[in-house]
Amino acid sequence: MYITQGLKRAVQVNRDGIATIDGEHQQTWGNFAERATKLAGALQALGLQTEARVAILSQNSDRYLETFYAIAWAGGIIVPLNFRLAPPELVYMLNDAGVQILLVDDTVKPTLPELLPHVKNLQHVIVMDGNLPPNTLAYEDILARAAPVPDAGRGGDDVVAIFYTGGTTGIPKGVMLSHTNLVSNAMTALLNIYEGEPWIYLHSAPMFHIADAQWMVGVTMQAGTHVFMPRFIPETMLATIEKYKVTHCALVPTMVNMLLNSGKIDHYDLSSLRGMNYGGSPMAPALIARTRQALPTCRLFQGYGQTETAPNVSMLHDKYHDPDGEYADKIESAGQPMFTVEVIIVDADDKTVSPGEIGEIAVRGPNVMRGYWNKPEETAYALRGGWMHTGDMGYMDSDGFLYIVDRLKDVVISGGENVYSAEVEAAIYQHPAVAVCAVIGIPDEQWGEKVHAVIVPREGQTITEAELLEHCRKLIAGYKCPHSVEIRHEPMPLSGAGKILKRELRAPYWEGKSRSVN
Amino acid sequence: MYITQGLKRAVQVNRDGIATIDGEHQQTWGNFAERATKLAGALQALGLQTEARVAILSQNSDRYLETFYAIAWAGGIIVPLNFRLAPPELVYMLNDAGVQILLVDDTVKPTLPELLPHVKNLQHVIVMDGNLPPNTLAYEDILARAAPVPDAGRGGDDVVAIFYTGGTTGIPKGVMLSHTNLVSNAMTALLNIYEGEPWIYLHSAPMFHIADAQWMVGVTMQAGTHVFMPRFIPETMLATIEKYKVTHCALVPTMVNMLLNSGKIDHYDLSSLRGMNYGGSPMAPALIARTRQALPTCRLFQGYGQTETAPNVSMLHDKYHDPDGEYADKIESAGQPMFTVEVIIVDADDKTVSPGEIGEIAVRGPNVMRGYWNKPEETAYALRGGWMHTGDMGYMDSDGFLYIVDRLKDVVISGGENVYSAEVEAAIYQHPAVAVCAVIGIPDEQWGEKVHAVIVPREGQTITEAELLEHCRKLIAGYKCPHSVEIRHEPMPLSGAGKILKRELRAPYWEGKSRSVN
Repeated sequence: MYITQGLKRAVQVNRDGIATIDGEHQQTWGNFAERATKLAGALQALGLQTEARVAILSQNSDRYLETFYAIAWAGGIIVPLNFRLAPPELVYMLNDAGVQILLVDDTVKPTLPELLPHVKNLQHVIVMDGNLPPNTLAYEDILARAAPVPDAGRGGDDVVAIFYTGGTTGIPKGVMLSHTNLVSNAMTALLNIYEGEPWIYLHSAPMFHIADAQWMVGVTMQAGTHVFMPRFIPETMLATIEKYKVTHCALVPTMVNMLLNSGKIDHYDLSSLRGMNYGGSPMAPALIARTRQALPTCRLFQGYGQTETAPNVSMLHDKYHDPDGEYADKIESAGQPMFTVEVIIVDADDKTVSPGEIGEIAVRGPNVMRGYWNKPEETAYALRGGWMHTGDMGYMDSDGFLYIVDRLKDVVISGGENVYSAEVEAAIYQHPAVAVCAVIGIPDEQWGEKVHAVIVPREGQTITEAELLEHCRKLIAGYKCPHSVEIRHEPMPLSGAGKILKRELRAPYWEGKSRSVN
Repeated sequence: MYITQGLKRAVQVNRDGIATIDGEHQQTWGNFAERATKLAGALQALGLQTEARVAILSQNSDRYLETFYAIAWAGGIIVPLNFRLAPPELVYMLNDAGVQILLVDDTVKPTLPELLPHVKNLQHVIVMDGNLPPNTLAYEDILARAAPVPDAGRGGDDVVAIFYTGGTTGIPKGVMLSHTNLVSNAMTALLNIYEGEPWIYLHSAPMFHIADAQWMVGVTMQAGTHVFMPRFIPETMLATIEKYKVTHCALVPTMVNMLLNSGKIDHYDLSSLRGMNYGGSPMAPALIARTRQALPTCRLFQGYGQTETAPNVSMLHDKYHDPDGEYADKIESAGQPMFTVEVIIVDADDKTVSPGEIGEIAVRGPNVMRGYWNKPEETAYALRGGWMHTGDMGYMDSDGFLYIVDRLKDVVISGGENVYSAEVEAAIYQHPAVAVCAVIGIPDEQWGEKVHAVIVPREGQTITEAELLEHCRKLIAGYKCPHSVEIRHEPMPLSGAGKILKRELRAPYWEGKSRSVN
């Protein structure tokens, strides 16, 4: 399997069909392929050799997609970076991956002076749009001068992309994904969602994230149409769906919530929408019900996975989304294993547990990464025994539905009992004065760890430790209730992806002590 | 990718669902997996080691499917054989593949004395049903004594099956198919046909042929239901569809014709049928129209391919089957390339030709075989340059639809012009007195080859060479018309699969002379 095959197929079956819509700029698959293969030629002319790393630091655009296919076509490795990260994080990634060529869009240019002096092997910076800082090349200039080149012919287990992950766990790790990883993932995802007609797909989530990046491959394979939004803005998204009759999109539940709360959803004709792929977490049944009501033509598909699994491990099909339907008991699950993916739940000794028992979710299949870039030990540990150990705790019911309970590292082990931080947080969130909370394990001489809650109250509200404990005792077992509560008045530390950095909350308590996972 | 994953998934998601229906015998996925993994244990106890070849010589049955998965689970290689072949052909294949264990059903047992004395490495014969000849083992006995074993853990490029092909070309060749070949083929086929609900699939075509064998994998991946008919009998098929509410089946056009001509199609409720996968050749538009009328709930999907491509290269989706519809011009094509398969048309120098130009169809993708068993030269030639050279001549239109023109070896090259035997035959078949015909190239000093037609008249009809030539001249160009006609009164020589053996028709003319392809 190789992602360039999908591009060639799109040209064969739909040469004059619309490949990309970016604002007022549209192009056919014939034009798109010509530009991508010329850009591949330009990259090779700049010195790109097989497996050279080329980074993209850009908002969503048609040039992003051109670049993605050009790098693969030229035989390089794509490194999509999160433009929201701080310059030191980006410098770390650029150096770690040994990036030789960097493409940036206009929004990233102001950061360049903070990046470039610190990046060691960088040979060229290509500016995708706007004016040209010194010592950079203009995307359209190098494209205009280039000639198309033949497909470098890479595929199968060859690495085609390195996606950085690990914002919540410390040192970022480069996840090496192969051609087969990306194509097989697209196939299994399509098998759930595709209905036989090419999509008009809106890239509304950031393309540097695997959740959207997977659809660069999956929509091209169909010879469908890619529509781009530079970044997610609820009303822009609604207007774009109406204007281009968008059929499919991918979002996280927070974005769905923002669409519904925009107050604008009734102002637009969204009847073209046939499918929405959401992930990152399950949606609350109430949010699902509201979404189904607001978007009656749109089927919902929850994908569960991670960058290391390219990303889909399991999917909750639309038919399990009716809160009042036959399958309502499945609505809080992450669905069933993808068609080519083997999913098991293992205990601490890597033995498979019985249906219903909680353990670590382990995955095997053509979608599992080749490893972490330049991190053989972390790779060997994550892939021990041939299984990707996801670090997620969960269980599988007797119908093969997967339920995610917590991140392994967030489980508090107190007196030999596992306390799942997510369960305690769910209880705390039911208190009306709580805006944000995080439950962590802190060291305790008697119990090993004890349950500690960090709370940010809602603006203008107050809450005491005693009130919170009383609230929790009504909802969960005593051993799960916090032993201590910290009322915090500054915001939580967040990762680039907006997740609470529990590692940072835990750090002061564990100084000089060792925790088994961190 | 590995086919055992599909079995494990079926047990996870549908343990109590019906896996197989064979006459009155039904079993759940839980039971099926238990039997298959016990049979794997029995095979290992009999001495089966990794990559040992195990042949199946049987009509369709649930035990056939159990055996297929058991061999894969145990780490062996499955060799499905055509029970219609003559004993010397079977002996050749059993020896060529070095088969150690042979499974046979009751219908094959009478042939055993003609086979066994001539097969060299055979260690065990397992009898799947009926009474027990000397020195054989009973399937149910060894199963009852065995314990389940763990999955041998093979997958990816590991060979899991050897399918014999080459009935029309001389020495049979063993096509080595890997786990990835079979699973990726099932994925692309499902992407065309699957609608989100598990199938009730009827194995009506022989399971030893890749056209049906592919659905052993594709239906198990869905955790669907396999229904078995020992062999194709039109009315039995109709009754089985009604009785078990069969949703999908795979047939060749001849079988479809037999169903329609059975006079029984109105006697049964066939409204459960949602999809039919047919292959081997396109269906005539008139036959398509009749099928659509007789089976209005059933979508039609033509697969084009060959054993070497596991098998699907392209598929004509149901929507292109309406003879009066928007896409009526595509109805005689073999459809568009599968989602993960690259298809090109090349000239004799392996250069890609333009859309519309005829050349040899070449294929690359995860479905392309690992090679021919023990035939490195034939493998290198077929896969030269990394492309499977199908030996089929065809062209691709500007929408990516593939049209098959002829087998490369059946093209008559006369005075430098290519004459496609299939085109000449189509003209001859329009004469009402012709029952069967075959057009071949025979040597000619002046032209290299000349066009020669072999005709079997319909019973009670006569036709002269002059009449036939006059008929052809009205329909096709002069240089395509036969230079000579042979009226034949005995049946054509046929392969095991029922194809006319043109090689045998050509042989007497070419004795002592060499033809570039044969």
